[in-house]
Amino acid sequence: MASNKPILVVAGVGNGSGTGAATALEFSKAGYRVALIARNADHLKTTADGIVASGGDAASFPVTQYDYPSIQAAFASVKSHWPASPIRAAVWNAGHGVWKPFLSLTEAEVKSSVDTNIVAAFAFARSSILAFQENDIDEKSGKRGVLIFTGATASLRGNKTTSAFAAGKFGLRALSQSLNKEFGSQNIHVAHAIIDGGILTDRSREFRGKSDPKWVENEDVRLSPESIAKSYLYLANQDRSAWTWELDLRPAHETW
Amino acid sequence: MASNKPILVVAGVGNGSGTGAATALEFSKAGYRVALIARNADHLKTTADGIVASGGDAASFPVTQYDYPSIQAAFASVKSHWPASPIRAAVWNAGHGVWKPFLSLTEAEVKSSVDTNIVAAFAFARSSILAFQENDIDEKSGKRGVLIFTGATASLRGNKTTSAFAAGKFGLRALSQSLNKEFGSQNIHVAHAIIDGGILTDRSREFRGKSDPKWVENEDVRLSPESIAKSYLYLANQDRSAWTWELDLRPAHETW
Amino acid sequence: MASNKPILVVAGVGNGSGTGAATALEFSKAGYRVALIARNADHLKTTADGIVASGGDAASFPVTQYDYPSIQAAFASVKSHWPASPIRAAVWNAGHGVWKPFLSLTEAEVKSSVDTNIVAAFAFARSSILAFQENDIDEKSGKRGVLIFTGATASLRGNKTTSAFAAGKFGLRALSQSLNKEFGSQNIHVAHAIIDGGILTDRSREFRGKSDPKWVENEDVRLSPESIAKSYLYLANQDRSAWTWELDLRPAHETW
Amino acid sequence: MASNKPILVVAGVGNGSGTGAATALEFSKAGYRVALIARNADHLKTTADGIVASGGDAASFPVTQYDYPSIQAAFASVKSHWPASPIRAAVWNAGHGVWKPFLSLTEAEVKSSVDTNIVAAFAFARSSILAFQENDIDEKSGKRGVLIFTGATASLRGNKTTSAFAAGKFGLRALSQSLNKEFGSQNIHVAHAIIDGGILTDRSREFRGKSDPKWVENEDVRLSPESIAKSYLYLANQDRSAWTWELDLRPAHETW
Repeated sequence: MASNKPILVVAGVGNGSGTGAATALEFSKAGYRVALIARNADHLKTTADGIVASGGDAASFPVTQYDYPSIQAAFASVKSHWPASPIRAAVWNAGHGVWKPFLSLTEAEVKSSVDTNIVAAFAFARSSILAFQENDIDEKSGKRGVLIFTGATASLRGNKTTSAFAAGKFGLRALSQSLNKEFGSQNIHVAHAIIDGGILTDRSREFRGKSDPKWVENEDVRLSPESIAKSYLYLANQDRSAWTWELDLRPAHETW
Repeated sequence: MASNKPILVVAGVGNGSGTGAATALEFSKAGYRVALIARNADHLKTTADGIVASGGDAASFPVTQYDYPSIQAAFASVKSHWPASPIRAAVWNAGHGVWKPFLSLTEAEVKSSVDTNIVAAFAFARSSILAFQENDIDEKSGKRGVLIFTGATASLRGNKTTSAFAAGKFGLRALSQSLNKEFGSQNIHVAHAIIDGGILTDRSREFRGKSDPKWVENEDVRLSPESIAKSYLYLANQDRSAWTWELDLRPAHETW
Repeated sequence: MASNKPILVVAGVGNGSGTGAATALEFSKAGYRVALIARNADHLKTTADGIVASGGDAASFPVTQYDYPSIQAAFASVKSHWPASPIRAAVWNAGHGVWKPFLSLTEAEVKSSVDTNIVAAFAFARSSILAFQENDIDEKSGKRGVLIFTGATASLRGNKTTSAFAAGKFGLRALSQSLNKEFGSQNIHVAHAIIDGGILTDRSREFRGKSDPKWVENEDVRLSPESIAKSYLYLANQDRSAWTWELDLRPAHETW
Repeated sequence: MASNKPILVVAGVGNGSGTGAATALEFSKAGYRVALIARNADHLKTTADGIVASGGDAASFPVTQYDYPSIQAAFASVKSHWPASPIRAAVWNAGHGVWKPFLSLTEAEVKSSVDTNIVAAFAFARSSILAFQENDIDEKSGKRGVLIFTGATASLRGNKTTSAFAAGKFGLRALSQSLNKEFGSQNIHVAHAIIDGGILTDRSREFRGKSDPKWVENEDVRLSPESIAKSYLYLANQDRSAWTWELDLRPAHETW
């Protein structure tokens, strides 16, 4: 019944041109209601409106910042908004990067990197798992829910200008692995996707595309948010007998 | 046109109850002709017949052993058999394990482990890539072909009784990573799947199921070959903008 | 000349029975003055007194907590204390662990884990590297200084009750790798030691030794702080032509 | 008593200018008799003569190739040569690299890479461990023996032209990890050193030094065999309470 359609909660929707928004659209097409969390209420509304216009159910849940109480409040709002629907998928696409030589990093930048990339992700994971624990095991997939974290090249390798970002992304990876091991026995699936390359978004289209217009057009050299979103839906659909903790995603011609 | 249906070549079909055979069936349902390579001609024929009975195209290419000339000959036979069809997918599921305390391993067992797990895989990769290089780039996926290797827990960790098996599986992983990096720029996709758990096959059903009948029934604790096969088809369908080198697959309740 | 003896700064000295204090003693024997940083001033004094009694130079620099200003202030005090001596080694042994099921972790525990394990380590690294940059390259080792971070099993693997600790330790590892890559070209050596097992300290002697007295006596099953300290001195002495970013340390009989 | 001096067996001595020979000299200075295994009897003799001239005990044990019977025979000869001395250290520095685009690799090159890098290492490990099992536990180190394998960048990463070499080196790493886990409980220490950079040898001095003379002189950019040898002696001296399976070694200015 329509009222029981599952909900996807996605955090980190940006201006609607990146992975978070593409994921929302992909899951919407697959029959999920989508709850969008981000800091910019206007962008969120535009993204939600777009999904509704395409025939889906979407709602915005802006937060002033990514912290424990904001995220708990957002999940509570999602439940109130669609009281008859179970939250069955959650995608953490928030957090942010800072690329700087180590000595030019400020204390605030280091703190901000671990707070948004790690602490806020703990809050998001907590709310997701508590929601999943209320669900029955889905007959088809054998799951109560799926929680996907977006990683990066910096999840696996610290590098010259990535100390703060890598510290955050390594920490997020640790969280995802710990959760996969702890909650698998409750049929809660936790996965980690390492996005190893540049993603085509409005911002990268403008900055990188200006100097290198071919980068925008050539699907061999940059990731499409839509392709990442398809991978996330695939992870959500994997069944209990063979599911993935971690996969990497990169363009065909990426040098790595 | 039907004559242009793509071909999957799969090596390591066993008695038809495991990953290789399930992969053949899954790709067959998705529109591939399937070329089956294994050492037991009778088993191969039974598996091929089953796929044909289900409406697919399948043919057997038995080899006396996994070595360079046998594998080259098998690929030549595949091309002769379906001259108008391109080989677009190849799955290496052969190789074998030996679990023994180190000092009880014979020279022959060590050699056999590296020969089947590594050297034969080089031959299989060579024939696959040479075949792919003749293909156009597929419009939908942006690929000339996909080559998938089956890994194991021992691909990532040597352990007390796995020195010979892990040496083979680590070596196979190195091969897959090298190929991914070398041939990505030719739009040839090379992937590696780490199967981290027990797979339900006729053999494991008999041996493990005898002492632990629940293991057979409970999809939370062992991998279904069909679920692995679905992951392989997913990898084959990933598009050029975001493809995966490596993913892990394990049952929901696996302790790892 | 004695006044030019190099200084080791070590953070995380605990009650003087663990890795931090053993490292201080080992470097003291090797000719370093040792600056001890920890939160318990009384314990610090006892440890410093012990080193002085053994003929070394040691001084205490207690901090109220591990944060940016405290650590910067401590380094400033070290320089005032021994104005003619260069800081040439720094060992980060602080941070702390929390082992709990994920859902019972509080927000404060998560924050505290990333703040002490990551953010404070950034502050310590910053002060160390700024101090090293003032040094000449040492003739024998070819270095301006060495910075060693203490890791743990949780640096490499998240596990069921280690989400917060592993997030912190993964983050620390990322920092150490980034710094190794960024500052190697300045002949500053950054290393990371993965302590993969239980360490014999006053605390573990009491708790674990009570139920398992053999654990205390048997050097095959637990790490001696003195042996870890020897590894740290070895890392400090490695020359520029072949130095180590990461090594693991575990007892002979550890199962891993 | 002098007759009880421990023996180091080192395989892969080359022309005497590289890691194997430097290791022999370093252990000789530390009181070991050194048994040298390589394929070129003349080079071996020159290296052995040099060590004897420096006051050490050294003997040559040439093999026609690295295979099971040759290595077993060499170890038997070592025991006959110094019947009163225990073999307490073994360093595997043999194996060889091939760097080629994948499709230009011959079957023979692939086989040779896995045979020398993996199969021969299994034989060497077998003879070493059988010898160690006859020893008492050394009082100082708490070991019966130490077996060290020489790894490379290709031990951790496959790359465009390293498929065959990486397959061999990944396999060797698997072996070393398996053995560390299996024989630690017998107080046999197995370690793996990842040499991540170019080593200064007669050959590299000639080839690389010709185009880049600074490379030879600058200890910041290439590894000295003597520095690697010191690391191997350090590993041999680590005690049972805190020993290392794996460390990496690279020059200060290496980009990685």
